[in-house]
Amino acid sequence: MGAKTDRLCKLLGEILDLDHASALLGWDQQTYMPPGGAEARAQQLSTLSRLSHDKFVCDEFGAALQAAQAEVAGLPLENDDAALVRRTARDFNKQRRVPSEWVSEFSLETGRAHPIWEKARAEADFAQFKPALETIVRLKRDYAEFFQPYEHIYDPLIDDFEPGMPTRQVKEVFDVLRPQQVELVRATKERGRPVSDGPVRQAFDVEKQRQFGVEVITKLGYDFKRGRLDKAVHPFTTSFSLDDVRITTRYDAGFFNDAIFSTIHECGHALYEQGIAPGLERTSLATGTSMAIHESQSRMWENFVGRSRPFWVAFYPRLQGLFPDALGKVKLADFYRAVNKVEPSLIRVDADEATYNLHIMLRFELELELMSGTLAVKDLPEAWNTRMRDYLGITPPNDAKGVLQDVHWSFGGFGYFPTYAMGNLVAAQLWERINKDIPDLATQIERAEFGGLLTWLRENVHRHGARYYPVELLQRVTGQGLTPEPYLRYLRAKFGEVYELH
Amino acid sequence: MGAKTDRLCKLLGEILDLDHASALLGWDQQTYMPPGGAEARAQQLSTLSRLSHDKFVCDEFGAALQAAQAEVAGLPLENDDAALVRRTARDFNKQRRVPSEWVSEFSLETGRAHPIWEKARAEADFAQFKPALETIVRLKRDYAEFFQPYEHIYDPLIDDFEPGMPTRQVKEVFDVLRPQQVELVRATKERGRPVSDGPVRQAFDVEKQRQFGVEVITKLGYDFKRGRLDKAVHPFTTSFSLDDVRITTRYDAGFFNDAIFSTIHECGHALYEQGIAPGLERTSLATGTSMAIHESQSRMWENFVGRSRPFWVAFYPRLQGLFPDALGKVKLADFYRAVNKVEPSLIRVDADEATYNLHIMLRFELELELMSGTLAVKDLPEAWNTRMRDYLGITPPNDAKGVLQDVHWSFGGFGYFPTYAMGNLVAAQLWERINKDIPDLATQIERAEFGGLLTWLRENVHRHGARYYPVELLQRVTGQGLTPEPYLRYLRAKFGEVYELH
Repeated sequence: MGAKTDRLCKLLGEILDLDHASALLGWDQQTYMPPGGAEARAQQLSTLSRLSHDKFVCDEFGAALQAAQAEVAGLPLENDDAALVRRTARDFNKQRRVPSEWVSEFSLETGRAHPIWEKARAEADFAQFKPALETIVRLKRDYAEFFQPYEHIYDPLIDDFEPGMPTRQVKEVFDVLRPQQVELVRATKERGRPVSDGPVRQAFDVEKQRQFGVEVITKLGYDFKRGRLDKAVHPFTTSFSLDDVRITTRYDAGFFNDAIFSTIHECGHALYEQGIAPGLERTSLATGTSMAIHESQSRMWENFVGRSRPFWVAFYPRLQGLFPDALGKVKLADFYRAVNKVEPSLIRVDADEATYNLHIMLRFELELELMSGTLAVKDLPEAWNTRMRDYLGITPPNDAKGVLQDVHWSFGGFGYFPTYAMGNLVAAQLWERINKDIPDLATQIERAEFGGLLTWLRENVHRHGARYYPVELLQRVTGQGLTPEPYLRYLRAKFGEVYELH
Repeated sequence: MGAKTDRLCKLLGEILDLDHASALLGWDQQTYMPPGGAEARAQQLSTLSRLSHDKFVCDEFGAALQAAQAEVAGLPLENDDAALVRRTARDFNKQRRVPSEWVSEFSLETGRAHPIWEKARAEADFAQFKPALETIVRLKRDYAEFFQPYEHIYDPLIDDFEPGMPTRQVKEVFDVLRPQQVELVRATKERGRPVSDGPVRQAFDVEKQRQFGVEVITKLGYDFKRGRLDKAVHPFTTSFSLDDVRITTRYDAGFFNDAIFSTIHECGHALYEQGIAPGLERTSLATGTSMAIHESQSRMWENFVGRSRPFWVAFYPRLQGLFPDALGKVKLADFYRAVNKVEPSLIRVDADEATYNLHIMLRFELELELMSGTLAVKDLPEAWNTRMRDYLGITPPNDAKGVLQDVHWSFGGFGYFPTYAMGNLVAAQLWERINKDIPDLATQIERAEFGGLLTWLRENVHRHGARYYPVELLQRVTGQGLTPEPYLRYLRAKFGEVYELH
């Protein structure tokens, strides 16, 4: 490493130490913290965020960055120094526009909002969460203003999660997806052979569900020596280093899909982070390059793998062994159809693949309106329910199963939701490539052999960390930018088969 | 609060946020962190310690402190501002002598040492831990040098845990204690009615032990809304705020005493922290005033309460209900004697009250020699074993049950051990006072009523936090300084009865 870049990395290392400490405080907040700890935790997170921000945007850091930029000028992105200086410069130029006071206030308010959201959700009472959400919406609107001029007020927000992705392009892609997904859902309903989800809606002992999840993700390649699995109200993945990448999940004793697919989903995120090249540790590159790429990994493992027939060929006998009363007499074919039942439903994370993106579009549109100021927070529950009727034809019985279901707004994650849908598209683009490179992938999966797939992902995606921007990575691997066609092909093929549409 | 003190508290609040974040990183390190996380965790702890230190000893802080000192001049200690400015000044003047590089290195090395110690202990192999311990001993000797001139090289170390307590005074007290405790142990052996610890050395289901521990400490007053109980290799208590005070314990499936008395011990620490006046939150006073006072609380609850006959009058029926096979036919009197069996043993935390201080004296003397340079780390296991023979007449079969048993040296806690013995003395001094103020205390305890005792402790000790120095607190409450007589009276009375010496 060049001396100037080395100096930059020293400064960066301290900032990342603070950020990773914050991440642990956040993990604890959502897993083990007793209720009394909430207020002090919000303070601590606020202080750590502000210190990290101040250390990042200070003149000393700026000078070190400039020196490093000169040092790496002309070097290709394949050079670690060049890649990390470029990425650091991009982050620096963004954060430099954000005042320290905003960072401190935002962190404090979101830290406070989390337990409020948890309680409001538990009690299905949006009114409790409303004041906190109003504050967060105001702060995110203020945040966007730091990035004037913008094409759309939502652009700076989405850019935090998906570098270089404008709102306009998201809209274009969603405009293609929406009618075709609506049509597919209708086809399954009107022309498909009905699917019963009876098999997955039975009593499943939670401890056995946990055990099964652990067995599955161990096979997928999750390294428990460099991570752990805990419970949380809303499943998530978080990293404190490349060697400490933790996942969380939740359990529903009456619905099998919830835990297993959440667990595999988070495992997909974790495999990405655990697979980043060790040489990038404690730099800006030691993370996924964007949330859409991250979601492409989690959604691929969850759905393309976890909801596939070959996967259940491999794991169903074991599952039957764990739950002989519930599944002993259920045939694999019926179980496979059950986990893939298409049905407009209330909860995004439990949604089938055909309806999933509709949940995202709903949130995306509400976020655009909240940020543009055409929708007030107080009107959000009604706007949510109206759109649920429009897109999915159902009305939430209460706010817990509606507007309060997701954690994201409590941490101010406006701009995050669209990355789930983009992740689905990217997953499909990668999946077509992977199946060309590994022609017998299905057979490998039927044998619970995931080494071939994981090696491919490590080589083509994981190890690079944030070296390439998402669009660069996609081009390198697939020769294309973001496009909805592979995902639509995948959906039509899969649900055509499940519902016997042809 | 005065404006200058308010300003000081703002700066202090940020420093405490960093320290509390470090505390959480440490808690996680000892409870849930996967092995892979160790190296990054050491880095993170190092960065956070250094940042906290730098923010504390900087000129800006010094100026704020000076301004606050002027503001509170002449105010009594009962004034919160005056008390916190005094305590902060004492800490500032100590830390100001310590270079930032030392803080960073010490934190990094102790962060690394913890998993090494854990592994060495698990494998009973001192050689693995030796290099790390040599580094830590060197660093602590360097540390002492920052406080030249000193009467004894150990003085600056003990002062970190016990403000104002010189090595000389500890020696004097120990010189009184040693022969009388040795004599008491001999008396129980030679003249006492033999005690069998058979009842506590049986199979005890760990989950039921946990459940019993939770029930007990809930009765004692531990507030689970403001804390939690987890497992750790070495039990400890830690706080991230007055409303998030966590304890840990460990379980031995074949020895009942280990978990229950560790749990009650840590609960005693936690009751102190949970009982500090809320108005002191996020200041230098929101902590116990010294480790001896802290240990007086933990040792009092563990022994004066938890190993007393009235306590088991209250809890033994429930314990028999949980373990009918093991205890159903064991009489209360025999169980009570079993938990109080005096027997020279290997493990400090499992030691009976009569031999406990001998374990401390052994460590104290070894620490003095290590710091003075008259004992090398490589010779420590042998020196340990020799002293075990001298003081307790037994030889550890391996290092795990000898020199590696305690966590303290891995975090550089030289100067800490004597506070356990002093805590015993303080507990006895307080106990005599409490029994005058609450004449029917024993009867209350027999009914599992701990409100009277806890209220007394809250009023006289807990709520003050670090307002008074330990010796001031002791004087206020008992009218005396540290003295061994009450503890010796307590031991003679208790073991005179248990062993029927009179």
